[in-house]
Formats: sequence, C-alpha cells, structure tokens
Amino acid sequence: MRDCNEKNITTAVLEAFQGTPEVRLKAIMSSLIRHLHDFVREVELTTDEWDRAIDYLSRTGQGCTAERQEFILLSDVLGVSMLVDAINHRMPGGATETTVLGPFYVQNPPELPHGYDVSRGLKGEPLFVEGFVLSATLTPIANAIVDIWQADSEGFYDVQRTELPGSTLRGRFRTDREGRFHFWSIMPTSYPVPQDGTAGELLRATARHPYRPAHLHFLIAAEEHETLVTHLFVDGDPYLNSDAVFGVKESLIRNFTKEEPGAAPDGRTMDRPWRKLTSTFRLKGAAKPSAAPRAA
Amino acid sequence: MRDCNEKNITTAVLEAFQGTPEVRLKAIMSSLIRHLHDFVREVELTTDEWDRAIDYLSRTGQGCTAERQEFILLSDVLGVSMLVDAINHRMPGGATETTVLGPFYVQNPPELPHGYDVSRGLKGEPLFVEGFVLSATLTPIANAIVDIWQADSEGFYDVQRTELPGSTLRGRFRTDREGRFHFWSIMPTSYPVPQDGTAGELLRATARHPYRPAHLHFLIAAEEHETLVTHLFVDGDPYLNSDAVFGVKESLIRNFTKEEPGAAPDGRTMDRPWRKLTSTFRLKGAAKPSAAPRAA
Repeated sequence: MRDCNEKNITTAVLEAFQGTPEVRLKAIMSSLIRHLHDFVREVELTTDEWDRAIDYLSRTGQGCTAERQEFILLSDVLGVSMLVDAINHRMPGGATETTVLGPFYVQNPPELPHGYDVSRGLKGEPLFVEGFVLSATLTPIANAIVDIWQADSEGFYDVQRTELPGSTLRGRFRTDREGRFHFWSIMPTSYPVPQDGTAGELLRATARHPYRPAHLHFLIAAEEHETLVTHLFVDGDPYLNSDAVFGVKESLIRNFTKEEPGAAPDGRTMDRPWRKLTSTFRLKGAAKPSAAPRAA
Repeated sequence: MRDCNEKNITTAVLEAFQGTPEVRLKAIMSSLIRHLHDFVREVELTTDEWDRAIDYLSRTGQGCTAERQEFILLSDVLGVSMLVDAINHRMPGGATETTVLGPFYVQNPPELPHGYDVSRGLKGEPLFVEGFVLSATLTPIANAIVDIWQADSEGFYDVQRTELPGSTLRGRFRTDREGRFHFWSIMPTSYPVPQDGTAGELLRATARHPYRPAHLHFLIAAEEHETLVTHLFVDGDPYLNSDAVFGVKESLIRNFTKEEPGAAPDGRTMDRPWRKLTSTFRLKGAAKPSAAPRAA
C-alpha cells in the first residue's frame, strides 16, 4: 500500500493485520484500529496534540511500579475498568454484585484469626464487621478465603504510608463451617484517588473531583465458585453519586449502624460508641467461560 | 451516578467530564471516551485481556527513554502517526509531500559544510546527494536548515550503534543563495523497525513483517515556511508496497541513479561505481493554523 491518506489508511492498516494467526487477537486489533483511527479523524488530532498524547502515555507507563499501577488508575477514572467489570459479570442471578479491584490490592495478605483488629492501633471510630459467605442458592460456604482491605480515617491505604510496620487495615480471613467471619477495624472514609501521577493530571485538567465514597474492599475466593471482587459502601457518604471511578452500585451500599457503648457481638466490652456492619456475600457457581471466549 | 452498567456507563463518564474548562480538551476527551468504550463493548474485552492490555501499555511506557520512544513506534505500526500526518498536511498545493518523523531524529545535529561525507568511513555504496529547496511557487530558499539522517548499509542508525564515536549518517546543512545543498553518504538499505520492545511484540503476535523500505530522512526548516518532514525512498525497494509504518508516497520515490567511475559533480574523482540522488524540495508558505484550532 502506497499513498495512504486520511481516508484509505484504515483499510491499509487492517489489511496489514489480516495474517494475525490468533482469531481473537485479530478481532481485537481490528476493532481497536477502527476505533482509534475514527477517534483521530473525528477530533482531527493536531501534531502537537499527538506529541502530548505520546508524552502522557509514556509518563503513565513510567509511573507504574510494584506499588502503584497508574494505567489501572487511568482506566478507572475513564470508566473503562467498570465497563470491563460489567461485561464480565452479567446476570449475577442472586449473586453479590461486583465492582473494581482498584490499585491497592496486595496479593497474599497475612491470614488472621477471627476477631482480629486490623486497625492495629490506628485511631478511628471502631467498626465491627461480620460477614456470611453463601452460594447464590444460599448454601453457606465453609473455608472461603476472604481478603479485606480499606483506607484509614484519613483516607490512606497502608501501602501509601511508609511509616507503618506492615499490613494494616488489610488481611485474610477464612470462613468457618457456617460460612462466617468477623473482625474489628475502624470506619473507612471517603478519599481522593492518588493525584500525583498522570491520572491526577487528567482529573485536574478536566476539573473533575478525585473522591471515592467510603468503602471496604472484599475479594472472596471459594472452590467451585467464581471469585467475588467487590466493595461495601457506607450509606450517607457525600460521594455516592459521583464516585471518581464509577464503582457504586445501590446493592452494595450498607448501613454501618451506630452502636452504644457496651457488649459487642464477640463479647468485647466497648467503652465508647462503635459501628457495626453485617453483610452476606453470595458467590456465583463454578466459573463460567469469560464474556468472550479466548482463542487457544 | 450509581449502578453503572455496560449500557449507561458511557453517558455517566461523559457527564463527569462536562465541566472540562478547555473546549478543545473537552471535545477530545468526549470522543476518546466514546470510542474507547465502544471498542471495549464491541470486542467484549475479558478481564484477563484487560489485565494484559494494562501490562502492555505499562511496559511500552517503561520502554520510552531519551534514546528510544516506544509509544511513537507503536503509533507508527498502528498507522496512527501517518493518519495524524495526513490530517495535518492536507492540500500540499505543489509542496513536497510529508511522511513520518520516525523514532530516530536527534535534535540539533552537527552543522556540516557542503560536500561533507556523513558516512565518516562506514562501508557502503557511495551516494552523492544534491538538493534544491524551493518555495511552492518555485522561488529558491536561501539559508534553509536541512537536517538529514539515515540508516547504514546494515539498516542501523547511529543511535543504535553505541560503538560509533558520534553523529554518523546524520547532520545539518544550510542552503546557499540558490537554495542548494549537497553531501556525500552511502546508500541506505531497507531495515526492520526495532523489535526488542512492545511494538516488536505486537508485530510478531500478528505475523507482520517489521521492514521499512530504504529511505533518507529530511527535516527542512526555513523562515516564513512550514517545516517539511519527509523521506525520499529508493525506487525498486522490495518493501515499498508494505512499509511497516505505512509511510510510502509515490511522489517521494526517487531513482538513485547508478553512475560510472569518474568525475562526480563536486569534482571528486570516483574510482568505483557510485549513486546519485537529485531532488527538489518545495516548502509550503508561512505556517497556517493546525488542522484543528486549539483552545486558548
């Protein structure tokens, strides 16, 4: 192909990818090229804007480290992460709804005993969490792995606070024979997503606020069930209608009830007010093929 | 916005960007979000594929250094660079056609006297290049800055060969009062674009060949004219119809004539066969606004 111009170049590029051996990759590249070229044509991207886009993408990649994934954050604030989540978790059929993983999950957190206080002395309003893990047909699931993580009362995760000794407001629990787990923590707060990288640049340039409503993260894995990645949001949070990453689902908002000083469910005596979150989690049955089958 | 699903999320994200102060940025983000979401919906991107895309983009950014711009190379092999070039250089109106800058341009190359041999002793078939820089209305342009760069007989640029002492097959000339310049070099050869990064990964996965037809690069700047970024391609090259970056234009293909031993145009006596390239370059008049005006 010679003499590519703004009209015929898309056909030329699609032809160049015609020999792609993997059927699925060929379909993805074909769609990507059509949409990417259409975008460039539609806005008539200038050379200077293309330069700036190249620089922006380069710096986004350079902002990705073992502790920080700026491209995931960018995907989050563009709504792409939630769109992928929606496509891959259709028809929950009684199962708990899903939402984004977010950039702060850490693989293999420390396994903790029921009743452990994951705040490890961080100040905040005490919170007692009890969960029940069930199948979509309401059968309790024993021995499910429940990873939890959350921000502290100032809106930071432990990985953002280098002064902390290690995993804080983060841990792994296993459900008992009745599918239950419980732990102590502190109330999470709404917080801004990290703004010191390129995703923050975009939010500032577009005058968007960076806040996420207060939530706890859960990743629950059990044999013969699809792994559930979700949050529970705190009812009444001012950012429930404008989550910076578009992750709020009505079914995931919970009343974190206000409790008076006195005996807590696990026997602990509380000398000040505390909050309580009780929730079931219903897992979908054995993993089904993904939304779109991958070529071998 | 709560309960974003795969149908309504695009509207929700577009609404979040409604407050963007800069009109042009708002238009670009709006188009980008629509096309990006449409792509994800069209291919029903799986969570695993999204993971791989995040990883691919992160590594592409990490592959960008002072000497290497992997996102430009990716843009090149996806045809985006040539599309942006086409949109920004419509209706040359007698001016020389443009093509991609490519990843190997170095700012401010050494200024050299006419007749200099930029090969600096590298082996290859000798090539004499003489150029005439004119306005689109055929008036010679004196004192134009002509940056040239090219690959060697093995297909490498100097920046890819750390053993070279400095700028080789690269330099800056100034046109004389009649708009002329000339220099000695060696014949360029067709070569593969760098394949040790993520762009190379893509070419391999899609069974595309990585070759560019042999060419010389020119960047010509003159007062009151638009800077011209172009190549001249060697007629007969086997890759003229399948340039990996879609940059070939019929009007930029030249006959690099075969010459017998004897006197060259600058008086040099050649004891073996050599090649000659003679070309005019016609520059567009004073810079016009870009294809799409930028908001202030």
